[in-house]
Amino acid sequence: MIKETTGGISPLREEFFRLAQRRLDSLTKPRGSLGRLEEIARRLVAIREANPEPPELGKKVIFTFAGDHGVAQEGVSAFPKEVTRQMVLNFLRGGAGINVLARHAGAEVAVVDVAVDADFSNTEGLIHKKVLRGTGNIARGPAMSRAQAERSVEVGIELATQYAQRGYGLMGTGDMGIANTTPSAAICAVLTGRPPEEVAGRGTGIDDETLRRKIEVIRRAIELNRPEPSDPLDVLAKVGGAEIGAIAGVCLGGARMRVPVVVDGFISTAGALIACRLCPQVREYLFAAHRSEERGHALMLKELGLRPLLELGMRLGEGTGAALAMLLVEAGAKIYAEMATFGQAGVSEGR
Amino acid sequence: MIKETTGGISPLREEFFRLAQRRLDSLTKPRGSLGRLEEIARRLVAIREANPEPPELGKKVIFTFAGDHGVAQEGVSAFPKEVTRQMVLNFLRGGAGINVLARHAGAEVAVVDVAVDADFSNTEGLIHKKVLRGTGNIARGPAMSRAQAERSVEVGIELATQYAQRGYGLMGTGDMGIANTTPSAAICAVLTGRPPEEVAGRGTGIDDETLRRKIEVIRRAIELNRPEPSDPLDVLAKVGGAEIGAIAGVCLGGARMRVPVVVDGFISTAGALIACRLCPQVREYLFAAHRSEERGHALMLKELGLRPLLELGMRLGEGTGAALAMLLVEAGAKIYAEMATFGQAGVSEGR
Repeated sequence: MIKETTGGISPLREEFFRLAQRRLDSLTKPRGSLGRLEEIARRLVAIREANPEPPELGKKVIFTFAGDHGVAQEGVSAFPKEVTRQMVLNFLRGGAGINVLARHAGAEVAVVDVAVDADFSNTEGLIHKKVLRGTGNIARGPAMSRAQAERSVEVGIELATQYAQRGYGLMGTGDMGIANTTPSAAICAVLTGRPPEEVAGRGTGIDDETLRRKIEVIRRAIELNRPEPSDPLDVLAKVGGAEIGAIAGVCLGGARMRVPVVVDGFISTAGALIACRLCPQVREYLFAAHRSEERGHALMLKELGLRPLLELGMRLGEGTGAALAMLLVEAGAKIYAEMATFGQAGVSEGR
Repeated sequence: MIKETTGGISPLREEFFRLAQRRLDSLTKPRGSLGRLEEIARRLVAIREANPEPPELGKKVIFTFAGDHGVAQEGVSAFPKEVTRQMVLNFLRGGAGINVLARHAGAEVAVVDVAVDADFSNTEGLIHKKVLRGTGNIARGPAMSRAQAERSVEVGIELATQYAQRGYGLMGTGDMGIANTTPSAAICAVLTGRPPEEVAGRGTGIDDETLRRKIEVIRRAIELNRPEPSDPLDVLAKVGGAEIGAIAGVCLGGARMRVPVVVDGFISTAGALIACRLCPQVREYLFAAHRSEERGHALMLKELGLRPLLELGMRLGEGTGAALAMLLVEAGAKIYAEMATFGQAGVSEGR
């Protein structure tokens, strides 16, 4: 399924950027004066191949993928592991940051269990896609088998495809998983070739000693598991996590369905990096929501060639940055669709 | 009226910041992980003195003040002067950038004529507050009399007060006026003490030659009119504009009514700077929407001690940046009001 999906992703066509530019320059504003909103509009037109009708975004969804991490045993997080499960229940009751911000943005939250170490079989409202009950401790062995890693990516592809078919035209990614900045930093280190101390950050807010331990854990995980940088699925399996794989899958599936995907923070960007290594054209379908406070995030964004839309010092994950950035992506679509032209408004054009 | 208003503006009380911090730290997220949304929430609590109930923002309005500028005669803009009048009609028909973005943000647009050189007496939907029909050409004399400058500030105070009384709890500023980056840059130069070439930018998109002329015009305007930097109303009268005065008035009136004001780009920030020189406490009630592309804007923001919420390369004015930033200010209010606490959600707290 992964090969079939990547094979179906086309590069964006230059002609749609030109058509979009022509319309933007006819709207009642000085040329280029809406800055990045215009950049968003051009890209949406090219993604949707919308002409002459403006790009329609339709319904919005944020996928919040939850998974546990064996590496939490190494004491790399400020929170105990059971918080992953507790927060899933908080998501389902609507009390978490992502619920509040998604409501604000008019987006649905799709809460997906991919690897939580808990029995959710009787939990309603959750999307059940469990690949495994918590990954292995990457400081002592691989996170997952290659088959599990592939399955986690497929979960994301399946959901993105289903939602696109049901009229969702803008998707956001999100994550929940205690300790998941550790595998994300490991992926970042392997795929960018930077040392662990340059990519590991404070996650939920760890102290200096814990940060040193976390860096050591990442170093050990890479030495022990020897992930192959040219094989993104090998990296995902050996030092990654299932929610990161699912996020990569949403990027791939969204791009395949010509749906723009808003990528949240550090963990989501690790997923986006996996997706772009599997298929470089994917990046044209992605919007980087924000630059988080987490070290290594800026590095991955640079590696992807994505400029974040927001810089608000956020580092919560869950998709919270994606929810806010969706409001800006929609704003880009709306100026394109709704503003009057100079001709329509009877406004004189500039020099 | 100006004295009475500034006299009624209180500094924010530290105790509300502390109360807000305590609640923020009880919510189901790592401490501080919502970054600037938390900063917004603390300030909203202090502005509204809301405790224990969260701050309510109620309805939202963006005031788009329109005025003409005699200095347009000097050829400092890429657009002809009649565009001010034409754009006012575009605002009233809902086709301009500010209409689209205000609708997106759920805010009303209040279009106010303060100095357009046109007869709008039969124009419906416009708020009629004309102070004068276009300012004087500052390259040859003062923009306005001191009485007119005061009146323009009073217009803003009156409107902010009326709207606050009618349940508007979040206000944004905006402007329309061909050539108005020239008086704004002049105000910036006088109040920050920087030379014109450091504060003048390309406005609607002027070429190098026009920019040189604009800088020369600003230099001449300051030399000729000799505005007194310690007297903000003198600066406004001699080298400013009526819409800039009205924006200053909204800042003052909003602060007086304990309503947060979202300040748009370059022209609005010139107005905010006038307001803060009249009453330094005002700045605590202001949110800087964005850093525009216009030169000098960053300088004024720094002078005011305000960090912009967005950096999207915008330079349209009208209140477009304020509309987008309102969505972030609201997000700050909502996380504070709607997120579950650790206790409510049964989530374990971190170390």
